[in-house]
Amino acid sequence: MNLTVLFQVWVVGFFLLFFTHLRHHVITSHKALWVKKGRTLFTMATETLQFVVNRHKVPVTLFILMYIDVLRCQPFTIPFRTPSDCGAEEFFDISSLSCVRCGPNQRRSTTGLSCVCQSYVSSYSVLCFYLQGVTKDGFGCIRCPGGLSNDGKCQCPPGDVLVERDLNGTLLEEARCETCDEDSPALSVPNRNGDRCFFSVQSAWFLENLYSSSSACLGFSNLTACQALGNMCVMNMHSFSSASTDACALFNNIFRFRAALSSTQGISYWRANLPWLYYGDEPGVAIRVLQTDPVPIGFSFRGKNKNTDFRLLAAVYNVRGEFLRWEQVGGQNLQLCPQPKTKRAAAFSFGTAYKESCVLSVAQLFATHPEPLFYDVFLDLGGGENTKLLPLPTLIQNQQYNGRFINQESMNNWYLSRRMFLVDTLSGREKSTSSQPKVIRVASSVKIRFQLVPRTQEGKVFPPLMTVTYTDVLITDLNTQTVTTFAVEYEMDQSEARLKTDIALGVLGGVAVLYSLLKTISWKRRIASSFIDLETMVKFLLFYAGDLANVFFAVTVGTGLYWLIFYKAQQFVSVLLPLPAQEEQFVTYIGCAFALKAVQFLHKLALQVTVDIFLIDWERPRTKTNRSVPVSGESKHDTSPVSIWRTYFVANEWNEIQTIRKISPTFQIMTVLFFLEVLGFSNLALRDPWSNLQRSPEEYTPSYSLTLRYGVAALLWLCIGLLQVIFFTVFYAHFVEDKIRQFVDLCSVSNVSSGFLCLSYHIAALDTTFMESLCAQRGLLPNTEVQTFQVSLTSRLGMHYKKIQESISRRNQPSRLTDASTLSSLEPHFKAYQAMNHFLGCVIDHAHSDMDYIVKDKLMFESVIGMEFLEPTEKSIFYNDEAHTFSNVLYYGNEATLLIFDTLFFCVVDLGSQSFLLAAVLTYVQQVIFRFLRNSLGRKNLANKTLVDERFLI
Amino acid sequence: MNLTVLFQVWVVGFFLLFFTHLRHHVITSHKALWVKKGRTLFTMATETLQFVVNRHKVPVTLFILMYIDVLRCQPFTIPFRTPSDCGAEEFFDISSLSCVRCGPNQRRSTTGLSCVCQSYVSSYSVLCFYLQGVTKDGFGCIRCPGGLSNDGKCQCPPGDVLVERDLNGTLLEEARCETCDEDSPALSVPNRNGDRCFFSVQSAWFLENLYSSSSACLGFSNLTACQALGNMCVMNMHSFSSASTDACALFNNIFRFRAALSSTQGISYWRANLPWLYYGDEPGVAIRVLQTDPVPIGFSFRGKNKNTDFRLLAAVYNVRGEFLRWEQVGGQNLQLCPQPKTKRAAAFSFGTAYKESCVLSVAQLFATHPEPLFYDVFLDLGGGENTKLLPLPTLIQNQQYNGRFINQESMNNWYLSRRMFLVDTLSGREKSTSSQPKVIRVASSVKIRFQLVPRTQEGKVFPPLMTVTYTDVLITDLNTQTVTTFAVEYEMDQSEARLKTDIALGVLGGVAVLYSLLKTISWKRRIASSFIDLETMVKFLLFYAGDLANVFFAVTVGTGLYWLIFYKAQQFVSVLLPLPAQEEQFVTYIGCAFALKAVQFLHKLALQVTVDIFLIDWERPRTKTNRSVPVSGESKHDTSPVSIWRTYFVANEWNEIQTIRKISPTFQIMTVLFFLEVLGFSNLALRDPWSNLQRSPEEYTPSYSLTLRYGVAALLWLCIGLLQVIFFTVFYAHFVEDKIRQFVDLCSVSNVSSGFLCLSYHIAALDTTFMESLCAQRGLLPNTEVQTFQVSLTSRLGMHYKKIQESISRRNQPSRLTDASTLSSLEPHFKAYQAMNHFLGCVIDHAHSDMDYIVKDKLMFESVIGMEFLEPTEKSIFYNDEAHTFSNVLYYGNEATLLIFDTLFFCVVDLGSQSFLLAAVLTYVQQVIFRFLRNSLGRKNLANKTLVDERFLI
Repeated sequence: MNLTVLFQVWVVGFFLLFFTHLRHHVITSHKALWVKKGRTLFTMATETLQFVVNRHKVPVTLFILMYIDVLRCQPFTIPFRTPSDCGAEEFFDISSLSCVRCGPNQRRSTTGLSCVCQSYVSSYSVLCFYLQGVTKDGFGCIRCPGGLSNDGKCQCPPGDVLVERDLNGTLLEEARCETCDEDSPALSVPNRNGDRCFFSVQSAWFLENLYSSSSACLGFSNLTACQALGNMCVMNMHSFSSASTDACALFNNIFRFRAALSSTQGISYWRANLPWLYYGDEPGVAIRVLQTDPVPIGFSFRGKNKNTDFRLLAAVYNVRGEFLRWEQVGGQNLQLCPQPKTKRAAAFSFGTAYKESCVLSVAQLFATHPEPLFYDVFLDLGGGENTKLLPLPTLIQNQQYNGRFINQESMNNWYLSRRMFLVDTLSGREKSTSSQPKVIRVASSVKIRFQLVPRTQEGKVFPPLMTVTYTDVLITDLNTQTVTTFAVEYEMDQSEARLKTDIALGVLGGVAVLYSLLKTISWKRRIASSFIDLETMVKFLLFYAGDLANVFFAVTVGTGLYWLIFYKAQQFVSVLLPLPAQEEQFVTYIGCAFALKAVQFLHKLALQVTVDIFLIDWERPRTKTNRSVPVSGESKHDTSPVSIWRTYFVANEWNEIQTIRKISPTFQIMTVLFFLEVLGFSNLALRDPWSNLQRSPEEYTPSYSLTLRYGVAALLWLCIGLLQVIFFTVFYAHFVEDKIRQFVDLCSVSNVSSGFLCLSYHIAALDTTFMESLCAQRGLLPNTEVQTFQVSLTSRLGMHYKKIQESISRRNQPSRLTDASTLSSLEPHFKAYQAMNHFLGCVIDHAHSDMDYIVKDKLMFESVIGMEFLEPTEKSIFYNDEAHTFSNVLYYGNEATLLIFDTLFFCVVDLGSQSFLLAAVLTYVQQVIFRFLRNSLGRKNLANKTLVDERFLI
Repeated sequence: MNLTVLFQVWVVGFFLLFFTHLRHHVITSHKALWVKKGRTLFTMATETLQFVVNRHKVPVTLFILMYIDVLRCQPFTIPFRTPSDCGAEEFFDISSLSCVRCGPNQRRSTTGLSCVCQSYVSSYSVLCFYLQGVTKDGFGCIRCPGGLSNDGKCQCPPGDVLVERDLNGTLLEEARCETCDEDSPALSVPNRNGDRCFFSVQSAWFLENLYSSSSACLGFSNLTACQALGNMCVMNMHSFSSASTDACALFNNIFRFRAALSSTQGISYWRANLPWLYYGDEPGVAIRVLQTDPVPIGFSFRGKNKNTDFRLLAAVYNVRGEFLRWEQVGGQNLQLCPQPKTKRAAAFSFGTAYKESCVLSVAQLFATHPEPLFYDVFLDLGGGENTKLLPLPTLIQNQQYNGRFINQESMNNWYLSRRMFLVDTLSGREKSTSSQPKVIRVASSVKIRFQLVPRTQEGKVFPPLMTVTYTDVLITDLNTQTVTTFAVEYEMDQSEARLKTDIALGVLGGVAVLYSLLKTISWKRRIASSFIDLETMVKFLLFYAGDLANVFFAVTVGTGLYWLIFYKAQQFVSVLLPLPAQEEQFVTYIGCAFALKAVQFLHKLALQVTVDIFLIDWERPRTKTNRSVPVSGESKHDTSPVSIWRTYFVANEWNEIQTIRKISPTFQIMTVLFFLEVLGFSNLALRDPWSNLQRSPEEYTPSYSLTLRYGVAALLWLCIGLLQVIFFTVFYAHFVEDKIRQFVDLCSVSNVSSGFLCLSYHIAALDTTFMESLCAQRGLLPNTEVQTFQVSLTSRLGMHYKKIQESISRRNQPSRLTDASTLSSLEPHFKAYQAMNHFLGCVIDHAHSDMDYIVKDKLMFESVIGMEFLEPTEKSIFYNDEAHTFSNVLYYGNEATLLIFDTLFFCVVDLGSQSFLLAAVLTYVQQVIFRFLRNSLGRKNLANKTLVDERFLI
């Protein structure tokens, strides 16, 4: 290489470098104009360089090549070429992935990956030019009636065939276009090449093989032919009618012909040399096969005999009837959906409800199932060397028998069969077995159902039934998709469990009626009424709603618990979960429990916010030495007025304990949520026999059982609630604080001035003869510490009390309209308040001899049934009440109702939404709303009834 | 058939029926003895029937067969037999799935599915009996030195070969067992048949093909041979050293030989007729290839130019170097894990961080990858007819270059390559290419990494890098398993973002220092101290902790928000999420924010539960007419003592509003949880560009981005918190109730008796010159309604006040030891209380002329920076305080701190556990604990400081 060349190369190189940099700069500063200019110059420079290189034919050094490479615009890209993209005189260079021209007199090979020498034949097209057309075989010329195709051959309109030779093979002078006779009996259509009319059939495979197979099977007992015939029957979905002569009818003819000969393997439905396709068609065979004798193995969930994995084996045949192999079912054969191995394996773990669905593209099915495979499925019974197999009866949903879909009718009519296929892309091919099928048939649903033997203690099941549904997919284009499902279900007869539930409901419902009656009677006695009027009926129904709700709740929780314990903890399988369809009744019961509980809850709420309350300060102004407020620099000999602030204080505290509960509702929700979702207790509700709380995401997750979900949720809710109640009433109340006790003590502390406060209330307007009193003087009798009483009034005292109370109410009504901003406007209230004070004070001090009273303990039985036996005729009765019965008008005394209501609310929302989280949030919102209602209505009620201004109830 | 036979059959049938029923009955009543008897009789009866049938050779009718069938013990079972189970004279009957005996002089065929005629050869074994053994070929007899095998042939110990003929083929009289010479240079081992010693090599494939391929490639430029040679280099994981002569070295020699000739497709690394295996080995090539020029397509997440799906194409070659096809990457080729199609497709959606791992069984790999396939992967740049492809540079982690793992070093040293394989079960076969491999090589990790062009606005990326890691799996048994991973990652240079974050932190941190200084100065002024002592420093650091926490919080929330908005909402891709490794700094910042906020929170808590509080009833006993309690029937002319109940009431209410907040914390948690987990806001934190809230379970779920998780959670928490604050302070406080206002009003209502209550407190023991007062008289000045004041005391007043306060504290201490059960024991307290009452009452009434005060408004600027400019020298200053500054000693006035602390707590727990639910539960528990602490400590403090018995603080 001489110096001139080197110089030229370097000069060009310099320019290239310059313009590349310029271009870079230009691109980054986004000026399209400069880009164009730069590019043009760049192209020119590159071309110049190539010219220089070519002209001198110098071996340009590696260095320069790489230098140019650096200057080239990275990243490298190449055009996309496939072998079919290359022209007739090009081949696809597999190294450079591009089309490369063949050498002279070469053309590309059929694969397109190399070149072959040109043959002389192709030059006929030139010779034929004056004769208009080349024959199809390329060895002659012919005149064409229609036009010419691109490759110089004659063309016919679609539906016509091109005839170039007569029947004995002589070339015609002019080709003819003949229209195929599509009418009966010719039924002919053009073949693929468009050069012959031929008889059109439904399926090329059937045409070719049906009669040959059947005669080979019948005549020579050819094993393969018999299998092939059977497979054709299977492709017809086992359908036949006694009149026609399709595959299944032919098969059945041969079957009947062999009837007298010995059966195979001792099974009469299985004849020698024939595949076993059908069980008998007598009515009731299905019931006999499926529900008579259990499978001789027992399933066990845990313990040393643990046996949960079952193995299905399939004898696999191809469409030609050849036996291919024994295959274990699972993985790629029956489960068409792509799933990780660990998930797929769950289908064959006994007790795990398994279901997988997916969308499959037809193109994919073509690739993976070029021809159908046929499966005879058996259950492996184990036994080492002498492994026994149990044939799985199969129910083809689409099977027709004399035109009826008998397998969609009642079980008595079922016609069980054997052998199935997954994808049939073959029988839908019309013209030839290699053409594109018009339709493919896919097993869109394969379901294996195990049924437990009733009352088994050893995990025995009846022979599992395999239900197959085929779907035909018309092939319009290859992007069509189809859905397929594979499921394993477990079923047991639930009628006994249902019966037991119903019996429990009936018995407990009866008890509830009695209990509600008792409550109604007690209520009637307290209001001293003996008519059975509408109100009594309503009251009874309201009581009954609450009790019936408890019955429903107990039964449903018991049922949930039963399944939870017996299903999840059983060793030998003796129960199986109810299927979703079998759970409807259970869900209805929960709904009833919730609705009735809601009625009870609302009723209690309504009673609580309308309760009559009186706050009475028994202390009267005194002139004796007052020890309570020793004000320095003041004389102590005067009468001191009773301070209204003490009453305010008590009223305020009473207002505050309205919605105190024995549990912390929010902590309850949070803890339940924590157990269910963080610790994974919700996994206990999965439809599988495992009781571990944490599942790895690789594992298969079965669907949830509503029964178990309810069981787990209700149980957790009740347990945590109970623990909280124990904690709050035992530990917290003793060592931290007890709001109710504090309130009672508050009243007690006011004892310093020898007066006492009495909080009296009675439920419902008519209930004038019974009330509960919180009297804070330490004992109405000497040597007692009892501070609270239930009071049974004589009718006279009741009447008197009611009169004063009504006068307060009257005065109270108008005063509520004036928006008193200072205490001075409350004055009229104080007078009524004083009158009540005075009257009740006299009663307590035994001042009215005609309204005297006695103090006594309640009988045990009286407390239990909540009804008093003694009627106060002469004297009123003050019952000692150490159990703080007054908390019944607070949330505090109704914890059971509230807890059960919350539990049911939580569970009902969860059953509806299948989300514990949503249930928790809604339960919280519900609690907030009702607490707010209870608080504000209760506060209003308190203000109205006790004449304490709402501003002090904060 | 005559009548006798029919009778016999029927009699037997009857007995059968009887015993079957008996047996059933017996089984159900669980008596094993009867079962045995029943069975024996049953068997006898069956045999009798068969005898009858056989003897008379009658064509037993279908009816009887079926009748028997009914009696047979259902369900049918068959023994499990495979073709290999059948004996030498049996064949496997594919119809009955059992072994059936062949006809006479027949033996089974090789497939075992039919019978063939016996050849005479097999009878040699009989002939040879006296000559001891049959030769291997079966055509002669020979004496055996060792024992005889089961089939009558000679046997040698393992490692030996059996020699029956000498070198020229003459049969020896006695066979010999020869031990192969395993030492160098012979290195021979027995072959599979154990009849010849042969040279042992590493890989049968390499031995057969390495040198032939390389010479065919070098000599004849045979395309396929060159590809095959290249594939062998790829199977060696591209490793080579310049010294040896392995596949890659041979390839590189040919490559260098072709250097001077033209390169393919304009890429200098790709030589004509050779596959492209390597990029250059100069340092820095990787950086030039990967980070110089962007790919000429732009990705866009939404809008009409939406372009997120990228397509990878692979040219597939088999091991013999033949080009098979173009294949789209995805599905069965690069993604070895079985996954549903919809999930797999997510890998090729730009911006979705994709990762799938699974365990593959080696047996499965053998089945699916009988021989390796080689992939040249390209990115499809689109362009319709002129589709361009961009070759993906590949980084083989295991690649060795002169003995160094250069690709595990810094990027500058990387040696990029092309072409990869997934499973190589071929090169590990030692003896022959059909033997079992000793080892297989699997691409255990395939990772495609996209890197965004810095500062791009058009979604430009650099050429994606494919990183492949191979793992060798030793085949000990076929149940071995191996793990494989396929991942797609997206990366952008985060240094700029990090720099910006650091700048923001620095600037805001500086401002925080100034602000904290100001706070410290204000505090120093209020305690009238001017020394800079240790306490000052600690106080400054505590202030600074709070401010710095806010800075960290603001910056981290800002960052989270930035990513949330800019990543999830961008149209053209301009930012990509930080990778988990790049998030460490961010997480550290969150940790700092949380730790500092916790310090501030605890500090405030400590201040609040040690605050000095005085409840002073300014009303003094009066003799003028008392309007407050108009007791009927009482004289009204006496002095009435001041009721202590009013003070109790106020103290009790004060106790109750301690932990009132401007939000409902539980509602906050529930709502955040509802938004995140029920409405699906947590899906916004997934590493993909989609912003839809609901994802179907069929879709692929990418991993979570910590940054986005923090962003979503913090944002939701703050937004809902803010909405709650607005709701509670604007709507709820005006229309329902405002606890703070109610408390102030409560004090105001006590105005009826012309006295007023003053709640005074000051923070920290030394802070004697500044306090905040809640004085409930409507206005200290005429015509004002202001009820609360901040008070700046003169030093004289301060001293005096402090003296009285100390005397209370002294008296207070011992009295706490006696467990006073009635109010009478509280008497000593009342005296101190009266003294304070008296003193402050005089001050307010301007009675002490040397301790006078003025009332004024604060300047706007004073309120903003929280510092007073005027120093009280002559007169104390009462600043009007309409903003209820006193709530600063309650939770109520510190909502911002609490909200941010809760937010950070929630986020920190979530970042640690990746569970919003756990975070919610723990946040709730944290709130409960701190609220309980605050309440009980605050209550104790209130009781101590105000002398109100704890029993009244309920």
